[in-house]
Amino acid sequence: MPDTSEKTLKLAIPKGSLEGPTIDLLAKAGYEVYVSSRGLRPTSNDSELDLYLIRAQEVARYIDQGFIDCGITGLDWASEFDGSLVDLAELPFSRASAMPTRWVLVVPEASEIKKPEDLQGKRIATEGVAITERYLKSKGIEAEVEFSWGATEVKVPDLVDAIVDVTETGSSIKANKLRIVDTLLTSFPHFYASQSAAADPWKRQKMERLVLLLKAALEARDKVGLKMNLPADKLPALLERLPAMRRPTVSQLSEEGWVAVETVIHEKVVRDIIPTLKELGAEGIIEYPLNKIVA
Amino acid sequence: MPDTSEKTLKLAIPKGSLEGPTIDLLAKAGYEVYVSSRGLRPTSNDSELDLYLIRAQEVARYIDQGFIDCGITGLDWASEFDGSLVDLAELPFSRASAMPTRWVLVVPEASEIKKPEDLQGKRIATEGVAITERYLKSKGIEAEVEFSWGATEVKVPDLVDAIVDVTETGSSIKANKLRIVDTLLTSFPHFYASQSAAADPWKRQKMERLVLLLKAALEARDKVGLKMNLPADKLPALLERLPAMRRPTVSQLSEEGWVAVETVIHEKVVRDIIPTLKELGAEGIIEYPLNKIVA
Amino acid sequence: MPDTSEKTLKLAIPKGSLEGPTIDLLAKAGYEVYVSSRGLRPTSNDSELDLYLIRAQEVARYIDQGFIDCGITGLDWASEFDGSLVDLAELPFSRASAMPTRWVLVVPEASEIKKPEDLQGKRIATEGVAITERYLKSKGIEAEVEFSWGATEVKVPDLVDAIVDVTETGSSIKANKLRIVDTLLTSFPHFYASQSAAADPWKRQKMERLVLLLKAALEARDKVGLKMNLPADKLPALLERLPAMRRPTVSQLSEEGWVAVETVIHEKVVRDIIPTLKELGAEGIIEYPLNKIVA
Amino acid sequence: MPDTSEKTLKLAIPKGSLEGPTIDLLAKAGYEVYVSSRGLRPTSNDSELDLYLIRAQEVARYIDQGFIDCGITGLDWASEFDGSLVDLAELPFSRASAMPTRWVLVVPEASEIKKPEDLQGKRIATEGVAITERYLKSKGIEAEVEFSWGATEVKVPDLVDAIVDVTETGSSIKANKLRIVDTLLTSFPHFYASQSAAADPWKRQKMERLVLLLKAALEARDKVGLKMNLPADKLPALLERLPAMRRPTVSQLSEEGWVAVETVIHEKVVRDIIPTLKELGAEGIIEYPLNKIVA
Amino acid sequence: MPDTSEKTLKLAIPKGSLEGPTIDLLAKAGYEVYVSSRGLRPTSNDSELDLYLIRAQEVARYIDQGFIDCGITGLDWASEFDGSLVDLAELPFSRASAMPTRWVLVVPEASEIKKPEDLQGKRIATEGVAITERYLKSKGIEAEVEFSWGATEVKVPDLVDAIVDVTETGSSIKANKLRIVDTLLTSFPHFYASQSAAADPWKRQKMERLVLLLKAALEARDKVGLKMNLPADKLPALLERLPAMRRPTVSQLSEEGWVAVETVIHEKVVRDIIPTLKELGAEGIIEYPLNKIVA
Amino acid sequence: MPDTSEKTLKLAIPKGSLEGPTIDLLAKAGYEVYVSSRGLRPTSNDSELDLYLIRAQEVARYIDQGFIDCGITGLDWASEFDGSLVDLAELPFSRASAMPTRWVLVVPEASEIKKPEDLQGKRIATEGVAITERYLKSKGIEAEVEFSWGATEVKVPDLVDAIVDVTETGSSIKANKLRIVDTLLTSFPHFYASQSAAADPWKRQKMERLVLLLKAALEARDKVGLKMNLPADKLPALLERLPAMRRPTVSQLSEEGWVAVETVIHEKVVRDIIPTLKELGAEGIIEYPLNKIVA
Repeated sequence: MPDTSEKTLKLAIPKGSLEGPTIDLLAKAGYEVYVSSRGLRPTSNDSELDLYLIRAQEVARYIDQGFIDCGITGLDWASEFDGSLVDLAELPFSRASAMPTRWVLVVPEASEIKKPEDLQGKRIATEGVAITERYLKSKGIEAEVEFSWGATEVKVPDLVDAIVDVTETGSSIKANKLRIVDTLLTSFPHFYASQSAAADPWKRQKMERLVLLLKAALEARDKVGLKMNLPADKLPALLERLPAMRRPTVSQLSEEGWVAVETVIHEKVVRDIIPTLKELGAEGIIEYPLNKIVA
Repeated sequence: MPDTSEKTLKLAIPKGSLEGPTIDLLAKAGYEVYVSSRGLRPTSNDSELDLYLIRAQEVARYIDQGFIDCGITGLDWASEFDGSLVDLAELPFSRASAMPTRWVLVVPEASEIKKPEDLQGKRIATEGVAITERYLKSKGIEAEVEFSWGATEVKVPDLVDAIVDVTETGSSIKANKLRIVDTLLTSFPHFYASQSAAADPWKRQKMERLVLLLKAALEARDKVGLKMNLPADKLPALLERLPAMRRPTVSQLSEEGWVAVETVIHEKVVRDIIPTLKELGAEGIIEYPLNKIVA
Repeated sequence: MPDTSEKTLKLAIPKGSLEGPTIDLLAKAGYEVYVSSRGLRPTSNDSELDLYLIRAQEVARYIDQGFIDCGITGLDWASEFDGSLVDLAELPFSRASAMPTRWVLVVPEASEIKKPEDLQGKRIATEGVAITERYLKSKGIEAEVEFSWGATEVKVPDLVDAIVDVTETGSSIKANKLRIVDTLLTSFPHFYASQSAAADPWKRQKMERLVLLLKAALEARDKVGLKMNLPADKLPALLERLPAMRRPTVSQLSEEGWVAVETVIHEKVVRDIIPTLKELGAEGIIEYPLNKIVA
Repeated sequence: MPDTSEKTLKLAIPKGSLEGPTIDLLAKAGYEVYVSSRGLRPTSNDSELDLYLIRAQEVARYIDQGFIDCGITGLDWASEFDGSLVDLAELPFSRASAMPTRWVLVVPEASEIKKPEDLQGKRIATEGVAITERYLKSKGIEAEVEFSWGATEVKVPDLVDAIVDVTETGSSIKANKLRIVDTLLTSFPHFYASQSAAADPWKRQKMERLVLLLKAALEARDKVGLKMNLPADKLPALLERLPAMRRPTVSQLSEEGWVAVETVIHEKVVRDIIPTLKELGAEGIIEYPLNKIVA
Repeated sequence: MPDTSEKTLKLAIPKGSLEGPTIDLLAKAGYEVYVSSRGLRPTSNDSELDLYLIRAQEVARYIDQGFIDCGITGLDWASEFDGSLVDLAELPFSRASAMPTRWVLVVPEASEIKKPEDLQGKRIATEGVAITERYLKSKGIEAEVEFSWGATEVKVPDLVDAIVDVTETGSSIKANKLRIVDTLLTSFPHFYASQSAAADPWKRQKMERLVLLLKAALEARDKVGLKMNLPADKLPALLERLPAMRRPTVSQLSEEGWVAVETVIHEKVVRDIIPTLKELGAEGIIEYPLNKIVA
Repeated sequence: MPDTSEKTLKLAIPKGSLEGPTIDLLAKAGYEVYVSSRGLRPTSNDSELDLYLIRAQEVARYIDQGFIDCGITGLDWASEFDGSLVDLAELPFSRASAMPTRWVLVVPEASEIKKPEDLQGKRIATEGVAITERYLKSKGIEAEVEFSWGATEVKVPDLVDAIVDVTETGSSIKANKLRIVDTLLTSFPHFYASQSAAADPWKRQKMERLVLLLKAALEARDKVGLKMNLPADKLPALLERLPAMRRPTVSQLSEEGWVAVETVIHEKVVRDIIPTLKELGAEGIIEYPLNKIVA
């Protein structure tokens, strides 16, 4: 058996708007990450991890070149880069909301561009040149695409005819008096590995455990634990009327004729079922927070 | 059965010092509210809610005029306004502490005004003109009340003889070298509805569910879950000596002669009962946080 | 029995870098502390506590002089002061990490000082004069020690030959191109009492309860609750293969042949055992946060 | 001759958005004002001034009631209040730009209200109830005007049909997708005195000196000093071609045939005349800043 | 003569680290620029200017494409772009100091790369791909150059062998324990125009006036006015001993035998000449600030 | 003549509350100081200066020990230290106002300590132990003085009977409900040199030049230039009635019978003399700012 005591996994965390949410998610999964204010490399409470803070746009490149083993970055930026990575998992979190990042084709509200085809012969500015060119090609449209260093939304209509930009909620688009013509791509972060890291048994197992815990933390994010005491004879009615409460843990109480029912449930569902629970005679209903759920 | 799929409830959130606590409370109740930094209307994770951010002073007026269905605002501001609202619930939370807002009659430490009657013929500045005039009338005192646009506490004694102002802890009053003469009103936020919203079955049910969940979140605020293993024969002694632990959930453990005891209890009580629990032989005592409690 | 209804315990909270972590820990223990922005004395939700915010360096002095009954401060600052306090407990928390504060002897990377003995005849600046002089004496080294009012790390090599300074992670030492020669002391906060407070039965009991709850909160800091359903016949295998799960609470489920297993476990261990749990057939594995653990 | 050594003038500074600019202007006029962060009364480097920080809306009221002698506040808020003040000077400064505050009648971009008359029978929210009612009366329009506690711009169209609000540049109106229907009032700050202060010789002189210096500072704001050496025979051509340089100070230089020309001029004019100055043979042209100008 | 009353000049201001200094310089030149916090286009006090805020990297591109007439950006970014602009002036200002931006080839302190030639076959990350490739070509070195999205300094040595990055003072390079191998380019901002704008008489004149005033403001930046009274017979000695005071303005004073001497001088020189001035009998020496100097 | 080209003067800038004002003053004197955010040594635009940022309390010690040549620090801290420095100049500036720092003996408002003698046998906390002990000795009072690490004002009356603390305006003392019993010391910053630096001709000259320029900048702080045109025959009346305008520079204007009068004057005086100037027929009165004045 090989000595793995000094093995480390080189993991990239995406610098920028995903940085905070990624570090929060790692913490919920049990990995505390400490970021230095002096630009040194991040450290963590897992000595087997060797952490790098790399711009989301560059994570895929450095994994592909083999400088790091794996990393978290958006599907969008990975697809912007033309390499061959192993996609171990989609991690459905994002910057501010629970919605994926959308790459949208945007024009001024008053623009004559109403549909993608109207772009023929026009000029488009974007940070995602490859994403945009792939989209245009798939539609058979010819247009000039130029790389934009940022603040893309103020370029229309003075400097370009349209832009392809990122949005989560669409609110800044509305505030800038712009209009969405089409969605090119929706994207959540993924966990990517290099071919060679995926082929190394120790690294593979380490990455799979990381992915399992990250998913367990994501799974727990919008769910809660729900616990109550119920007359034992109401249990069938409960399960019939509330399919959301599938597979509860039921245990005997000391008090004759009562059971304790406990389950994991989406927090939004709690809003709807509490009246029914009370109707069925449930007592002492409490809701408590969760850290992780392994399905 | 009417189609309710497009129904919405217009709910006002009080802008100002109660705004943050109200949004936090809604979140604990399961309603995530997103406030735009650009002054647009708030949105939430419940598509049936149509949210408005309205100054606490104006919530009652716009409900009464029928522009919104319901809202959360202080009893003080609702009583300042002279309309006919339906009061669905008191929600005992506040800005910084768990104490209600107090409207107090305040004078400089050195003032000759020692009791309310000394106000006869004096001038009072306040943001709560109606509250103050109602108070004076009930006491049979005649004094001049003028509307103050804020920073009321610096007006005595140069500009007016006394002020009626809001306080939670009294600490800023002490720091300004002022003295409280009387308390006019104590006030928690309430959930108010318009007459017509309260008469609409769908809106009524929606509001009652909201109120139920808000109260469940408030109920959980200062309480915790407490769990321990106990020799089964100590259970009567536990219940006798610790009345605070009324109605615990007791379940059988695999280990012969032991039961698991679980209850919900005020966090402050935990400080006092742990020594007794240990004395009775309890083991593995853990305390965990709660999100909601439905009594 | 004496009337204790008006008794209070005078407790010092260390002002400075430990202030926030100490107040957070008290909150987790059930004692909410409110710090005034106007420099007034802190208040709390326990009317039997009389709180003082005192510089960590001075807590021991004022306890020893009898002006306050007890307080929390670092072992380092208490040992800097030469009095006779009662040490009721070590509380292993710190500013930013879970590591103790280290007092280290530091020189520039390029210094010729390689070992403590090289200090003979040199000049050392430090905030901890007594700590440093005790250390030098124990080593039989003679060197000049001068009190430094702060920013000690920029004094080498221009103004002094070496410094004795505080570090948690060592990162600012590296960033300043300094080198650690030796560690003089590692220090966690302790709970200290005066001789007379420790001899007063009411104060003694009050302090012991405080210490019990502070320790219970610290104990819960890195631990979590773990709960799962398991085929009853896999229970022995579980306990054999996962010694970390010693003494779980096991209760019968309604479903034949299944038990609910619940335990408290170090969060870092969760990372390692989940694959084994799944292998043994565990279902519905959830992890939840804890507030306090009384062993 | 009366002893004036202990006389003081009670002067109100407007609290709120005009506070900073007013204090800056006083500083330029030679009066340093120190505002306490603890809510105490401001102090200054003129012991004859007794300063009050009072909401812009209330300055006129407290002057009229005789509690303070004089103050600076907007013409708008003074006209909102129905008293009889002495208007000593208009002081043309404002919050962010050099433009006066405008009170504008605003509706949503898509509103059917196109001209003031369309307001007949509608509801208007505003902080300036008197300004709005006076305007409506002058136009013979009947509409409901309600006092708004702030954030007025988000009330249309949900809660009211139109608003009357304050703007300097109109940019926030555009950003909120609103449209200006009419301008009710443009307003600069004025220096107001009470009838009795204006009749007191000492106070009158003190106020007139203050006004003189405030105006001198305002006059210097956009002007600069311009100085150059010029062949003496080009002086007539200079004065003819550059009327903006009226009344320069001309002095003899030691060098035969050259004069030094110095003048005060609007900074914006400098942009236009420098080419002409060079053409006329001016040398060593320098521009320098001014503090005050007394015409 | 064509009507120029509606003519405007489209001018780009560089967004990013040069933005503040550029706007400050324009203000000193007499052009107040107002930047909207809502991302709208900047406005100014010159209605003939049409302002754009464009990333420094993109200014040259949009001038060359003819979308804007002219703009201010670094020589470095203009040379990164391969177009044909008209260079109207170098404007020697920068971000934080008065030193030009330097593009430097940087490696870790411990790297084996000691001279540019050691880069043969290595990998270099940089935001300035064209600058770097041109440099390598001129040296006959073949190396791989990859575009870096930022935080370039943390990439060596883990991800690349060397970086080409921007520095003003070199202090962050030292702090990151890096070493400068060579300087590729030093760069101040320039004022660039498009070919067509430079050929338009009105635009040409407008731009030349702008450049004249910008240079006058830069000229005044480190200079001051110096004024003194001097015995007339000491004037020759003054001019002989202090060549820095060349061409002073000398005027007769009323007092017999005295002249007033006034000059413009570099502020740093003032430090050195004051003792000499006093020795020569100068009195009432004052130094005053300048806004603009037209040589 | 020795080669001084590589000579440097080691100058200490006081770290802490005097740091900003000291750096501002140096800038006005012509020495731009750049402070690194990474704790490195400050640099300046004078390569002959070697700058150190040292706590105000320690400046005197390190000058006396000969590690630095000279420095700026308060008279208070220098007198706290018992060495033999050369005092080259008092520099009358301070933190926030133009008033000196005062060390005051302070007690709670309600304390029975009314005069210094009441301190006999009491306990005093202070950061200035030597200042306090010297004061007590001079008064023949015996009291216990203990070193306080800060936040001294909250220690009375709980922990000590009185404190000796620093104040500029006395406002925080009033806000803390304390009372000043006596003033021990008023203190402005001084420029101190070591004996050996004062004896080195090059260093001596360098320091004297620095002091000359610092004083010139301080002198200009509250003064302004005032310039006007005046009928020549009113000159005697001007000088007689306005002694503050002593020694103006008077020069002939081209216009017959008029002179230009220019002087340097305290800004506060401007407030008083402008009416007189106008009365005498002065025209075109302008006030402009100054950088330095060498008397």
